[in-house]
Amino acid sequence: MAHRSYAIVGLGAVGGFYGARLLAAGHEVHFVARSDLDHVREHGLLVESPLGDLRFEQVSVHGAPDTVPPVDVVVVAVKTTDTAGALHVVRGLVAASDDPVVVVLQNGLGVEEVLARALPGTTLLGGMCFLCSNKVGPGHIRHLDYGRVTLGEHRDDGEAAGIAGAVQAVADDLAGAGVPAVPIEDLVEGRWRKLVWNVPFNGLSVVLDAGTDELVAHLPTRRLVTELMYEVLDGAAACGKDIDRSFAEQMLADTERMRPYAPSMKLDFEAGRPMELDAIYAAPLAAARAAGRDLPRVSMLHDQLRFLDRAAPPPRSPSLPLH
Amino acid sequence: MAHRSYAIVGLGAVGGFYGARLLAAGHEVHFVARSDLDHVREHGLLVESPLGDLRFEQVSVHGAPDTVPPVDVVVVAVKTTDTAGALHVVRGLVAASDDPVVVVLQNGLGVEEVLARALPGTTLLGGMCFLCSNKVGPGHIRHLDYGRVTLGEHRDDGEAAGIAGAVQAVADDLAGAGVPAVPIEDLVEGRWRKLVWNVPFNGLSVVLDAGTDELVAHLPTRRLVTELMYEVLDGAAACGKDIDRSFAEQMLADTERMRPYAPSMKLDFEAGRPMELDAIYAAPLAAARAAGRDLPRVSMLHDQLRFLDRAAPPPRSPSLPLH
Repeated sequence: MAHRSYAIVGLGAVGGFYGARLLAAGHEVHFVARSDLDHVREHGLLVESPLGDLRFEQVSVHGAPDTVPPVDVVVVAVKTTDTAGALHVVRGLVAASDDPVVVVLQNGLGVEEVLARALPGTTLLGGMCFLCSNKVGPGHIRHLDYGRVTLGEHRDDGEAAGIAGAVQAVADDLAGAGVPAVPIEDLVEGRWRKLVWNVPFNGLSVVLDAGTDELVAHLPTRRLVTELMYEVLDGAAACGKDIDRSFAEQMLADTERMRPYAPSMKLDFEAGRPMELDAIYAAPLAAARAAGRDLPRVSMLHDQLRFLDRAAPPPRSPSLPLH
Repeated sequence: MAHRSYAIVGLGAVGGFYGARLLAAGHEVHFVARSDLDHVREHGLLVESPLGDLRFEQVSVHGAPDTVPPVDVVVVAVKTTDTAGALHVVRGLVAASDDPVVVVLQNGLGVEEVLARALPGTTLLGGMCFLCSNKVGPGHIRHLDYGRVTLGEHRDDGEAAGIAGAVQAVADDLAGAGVPAVPIEDLVEGRWRKLVWNVPFNGLSVVLDAGTDELVAHLPTRRLVTELMYEVLDGAAACGKDIDRSFAEQMLADTERMRPYAPSMKLDFEAGRPMELDAIYAAPLAAARAAGRDLPRVSMLHDQLRFLDRAAPPPRSPSLPLH
C-alpha cells in the first residue's frame, strides 16, 4: 500500500504531535503554520514524548497553501476559534489536491458543518483527540500522555455514516504511526460523548480555577459535574443520540483515576487566548434548544464563561461594600 | 416616651453603625464584642459617615452578657456564620432582662428559627439591612451609603404576623436615630425579597470576581442574574409567598443605577472569612425543595461557592494539559 500524504493545518499541541507521528511512520507530511513558520523552517520540529522523542531537523512547513504539493489527506488541527481564519488555507489545499479527505481534529459540536459549507462535496471526517500534550515553544511539543483519536465520517443530516473506507484508511495510518485510533459509526454521537466530559470539566476548571482532581474530590462539585453530564446526555437524547446515563458515571470514575489535568480551556484562559465557547457550549445548547430541550446548568456555565471571556473592562472606581 | 435601652451583639459594620446611631439619638446602648473588646474599651467607637461622623470616647462594651444591665431590646448583629457561637451571649442577655424583644439583623432565610429554638416564648423580630458600610479597624466603622432597615415579626409558622407594637416601637427608635425603617407585615416574604438580590449578586460576585456593575453591564451575566432572580421567586411562590416577577426587573434596574458594589460575601471571601452560604443558599434551597421545587441555577451557584469555601487543599502536583 502506498503511504498516504498529509497536509496538516496548525502546528500546535495537536497538529505537531500527530504530524510528527505520521512523519516518523514514513508518511509525506506538510505543515501549514502561522506564527511558528520561520522558527520551524529554520530549526525543525521536536516532539518530546514518553513514546520516544521525535526530532526532525527539516520539515516541510508552509505559510500558505499554494506551495504545498497535492496530498491525500488534509488535517485541520487549529482551535475552533481559528477555523474561520484557516478556511482559505484548507480551501486552497483541497483545490490543489485530487479529491482529498479532510479530517477535522477539533473539540465541540458542529465543527464539521463549518467546513462542509466551505467545501461542498468533500469527504469530511471528524476526529476527537484524547491527548495530553502542550506546545512549550515554537516547533517544540511536549507529549505527556494518551493520544487516542476517535474518528467518524460527517454526514450533512447528522445521521450515522457507518465506517467507510476513508475512516478506516486514516485510522490505519494513525495506528501504523503508534496512535490508537477508534473508528466510530456515528460521528455526532461521538461528539456528544466527548462533550459529556468537556462541558463540565473545561468550564468548571476555568470558573473555579481548579484541576480535574479537585473537582471530583469535593462533593459539591462532584455532584455538579454529574448533573452537568446528565444535562449533556439529555441534550444528546433530544437530538436523537441516546447514550446510557451510566456513561456519565464511567467518565467520572475514569477522571478520578487520571492524574490531575488542566483542560485545554483552562490553559487558553490563563494564556489570555479566546476559549472555545461556541464549539463546546453554544453549539450543543443551540442544538438542544432547537430540539425543545433547555439545559439550565450548561447554559449558566456558558454565561459565566462568556463573562470571563470578555475583553478587559475599562478601569472603574472600586466597589463599595454592601451588606 | 422613655428611651428604650439596647444591647447589641456584634461590633462590626452592622452593629457598630446602628448602635452608634441609637447612642447618638440618646438611647442607652451596650455592646457585646469579641475581638475588638479591648481596643474599643480603651479608644471608644468611631463611625465615619456622610450623615456626619459619630465619635464616642467611652462606650459600654462587654466581653460577656453577665456585666450588661437589663435592656429592652437585644440586637443580634453578628454574621449568620457566628450565630451558633453567639447564642450563649444572647441567651444570657435575654435571661437578665425583663421580656426583651430580640431583633435579628442578618441576611438569609430561617435565621430567626435558630434563635426561636434557643429562646422559646421570646418576641423575635427580623431586620434586613440595606447598608453600605465597612469595618476598617477595631471600633472604626466607615459608613458609605444607605442604611434602611426592613423590619417584621417572626412567627413559628412562617405566616404574616402583621405589624405589632414591638415592630413599630423598634422602627420608631431607628427612625428617631435617622435610620429609615420600614415595618412589614410578612417577615418571611421580606426575607425572600431580599434573597432576590442577595442570591445572584453575592454568589456571582465571588465566583466571577466581579462587582455588581460588571454583572449587570454584560449581557450573559445580566441574563443569568435575571434567571437566578426568577428561580428565587419560584422558590418563594412554592413556599406560599407570591411576589410579582416585575420585582426582579425592578431590582435589576435599581442595581444598574447604584454605584459599583462588592456584596458582603465577596468581602468575606477575599478576607478569608467563611461565607454565609447556609443562610443565603442552603436554607432557601431546602425550603423550596421541601415544597417540591428544584432551583437548578441557585443550586449550581451554591455548589460552586461551597467548592470555593473549602479549606485550602493539600499541595498537589501541577495539572497536566488535556485536549
